[in-house]
Amino acid sequence: MTRPKPIAVSLGDPAGVGPELIAEAWLRLESERLPPFFVTGGASVLTAAAARRAIAVPVIRIEHEAEAHEAFSSGLPVLGHDDAEYRPGEPDESGARLAIASLTRAAALTVEGAASAVVTGPIAKSHLARYGFTQPGQTEFVADASGTPREDAVMMLAGPSLRTVPLTVHAALADVPGLLSIALIVRRVRIVAASLMRDFGLVQPRIAVTGLNPHAGEDGRMGWEERDVIGPALALLRDEGLAVTGPHPADALFAAHERGGYDVAVCMYHDQALIPIKTLDFDQGVNVTLGLPIVRTSPDHGTAFGIAGSGKASAGATIAALRMAGQCSEHRAKR
Amino acid sequence: MTRPKPIAVSLGDPAGVGPELIAEAWLRLESERLPPFFVTGGASVLTAAAARRAIAVPVIRIEHEAEAHEAFSSGLPVLGHDDAEYRPGEPDESGARLAIASLTRAAALTVEGAASAVVTGPIAKSHLARYGFTQPGQTEFVADASGTPREDAVMMLAGPSLRTVPLTVHAALADVPGLLSIALIVRRVRIVAASLMRDFGLVQPRIAVTGLNPHAGEDGRMGWEERDVIGPALALLRDEGLAVTGPHPADALFAAHERGGYDVAVCMYHDQALIPIKTLDFDQGVNVTLGLPIVRTSPDHGTAFGIAGSGKASAGATIAALRMAGQCSEHRAKR
Repeated sequence: MTRPKPIAVSLGDPAGVGPELIAEAWLRLESERLPPFFVTGGASVLTAAAARRAIAVPVIRIEHEAEAHEAFSSGLPVLGHDDAEYRPGEPDESGARLAIASLTRAAALTVEGAASAVVTGPIAKSHLARYGFTQPGQTEFVADASGTPREDAVMMLAGPSLRTVPLTVHAALADVPGLLSIALIVRRVRIVAASLMRDFGLVQPRIAVTGLNPHAGEDGRMGWEERDVIGPALALLRDEGLAVTGPHPADALFAAHERGGYDVAVCMYHDQALIPIKTLDFDQGVNVTLGLPIVRTSPDHGTAFGIAGSGKASAGATIAALRMAGQCSEHRAKR
Repeated sequence: MTRPKPIAVSLGDPAGVGPELIAEAWLRLESERLPPFFVTGGASVLTAAAARRAIAVPVIRIEHEAEAHEAFSSGLPVLGHDDAEYRPGEPDESGARLAIASLTRAAALTVEGAASAVVTGPIAKSHLARYGFTQPGQTEFVADASGTPREDAVMMLAGPSLRTVPLTVHAALADVPGLLSIALIVRRVRIVAASLMRDFGLVQPRIAVTGLNPHAGEDGRMGWEERDVIGPALALLRDEGLAVTGPHPADALFAAHERGGYDVAVCMYHDQALIPIKTLDFDQGVNVTLGLPIVRTSPDHGTAFGIAGSGKASAGATIAALRMAGQCSEHRAKR
């Protein structure tokens, strides 16, 4: 068996918490049993971020991703010479350009098979948009980079307690009912089912789908979407043999005694999916993009400019994202 | 100091889990340090429900609520002769009429000051509606019974981890944005603040208010309600000296490290308020009605006809509702 390729990690915005958390993750590689990874660019940013966090993390420059395995046990491997100054909490142009270059290279290496997965560090989209980042977010970026239609790149949030998928994401709440359709639900749930089989090793994923309205509409007394949209979509999916239940009242679905009954909860909108994950697993949430030809995960938090460099940010989500990326690519390799 | 009046407890639907959970709560009155209470009617229902649950709960009929204190330590006091047959899981007309009579009497005794608080057992509104229950729910019933405008009876969910208030409740999600207004938010938050002072003994309640949209709208990029409705309402409330913060992104507000920063989270709609409570405190959630001249609490669950009589239902929420009713009426008595 050939050795699995290392994971490519993009730096995130150098002014955010991304670099220090990558350094912290490397420090814990043995206790957390992390798979080998390398960072695309930002060697001096990572060195400075580690020093500021007062952790001993030797940074090892490499010229080719194949050197990552060799270097990984003695230091944090960094590929290439792209770099910037480390100014935590002060996002600027050179940092933005480094973040974009790092993401571009990490995604490209994964698409071409030189890395087994890509883990993306946090960026601030509105800041990067000024310097040529044209996608609404990193999910769309990796979709474009891997030749996937953006509507087929499905965000899943995964924590130790729960996995959830929001069917609509960055939409005003008033727009959500109009965005839901039978076609959308069927297409996305199929992607979720296929990805949980391929990337998470589940033979028959149990998928619980929420309603849109309180108490899932109570037979049409509070909203009609369960009857006319969600219900018919789930019937089609069940006809295909998928283990899909719902529409469930969303308020009770995430209680401890319910969570064992499904592998993923597919939700109608952002807060319905994000509230339970962040309530239960705040510091360990991983954002996984399903439906791509590559494995992509990221810690489910932002740049946190306000606490960058203070040592307060938790590396839990970064560590979980690295571990999950390794597990998903192992599952893919077995198929 | 005069002895506090006992708490009046309504039976709930005799076919639901209400009666067995009241009996179970009485059984644990010492270990849970429950305040004295009596049930309005249903003596034979309670006797049969306790027997079915295999717990030894002597039922003591009383003719006047003042006898409750004397009886309470030796048995479960039941006021009056209203009764029905105990048929768990099979709601019928005589049970519905008993549930309505029990609720009516318990509320009336509390309004006239013969009881210190009312704790309402679970009913099925659509079933009771056939037999003369005209209100949308028990919250509106107690508002009517106590002469309070229904729009001023504010539902709060309270668990060991969290308190939340949904500003809109049984509305289709598509209708929620249109129901929110500056006037509604200001009026309800004032009621929440006054009630937390009067009934919960908080000197300056810290009130966190959510946004409606993902990330609280991100400065208008995803919805305008934060800027045009919620934000201005909170500015008015702060001008009145209330400790109100927000609008907060709802997804992160319920994480463990955030929950210590406020005494109550006021939310825009049903699932935003109910998902975090049920996710964290499923079996211990109490529904408290704020803004009434009387204290009213109830366990935050339904009749659960499907498991009535099986012994599976947890009495945690009923016990928590009784204890909270006692604490709230003590706080009121001190003022």
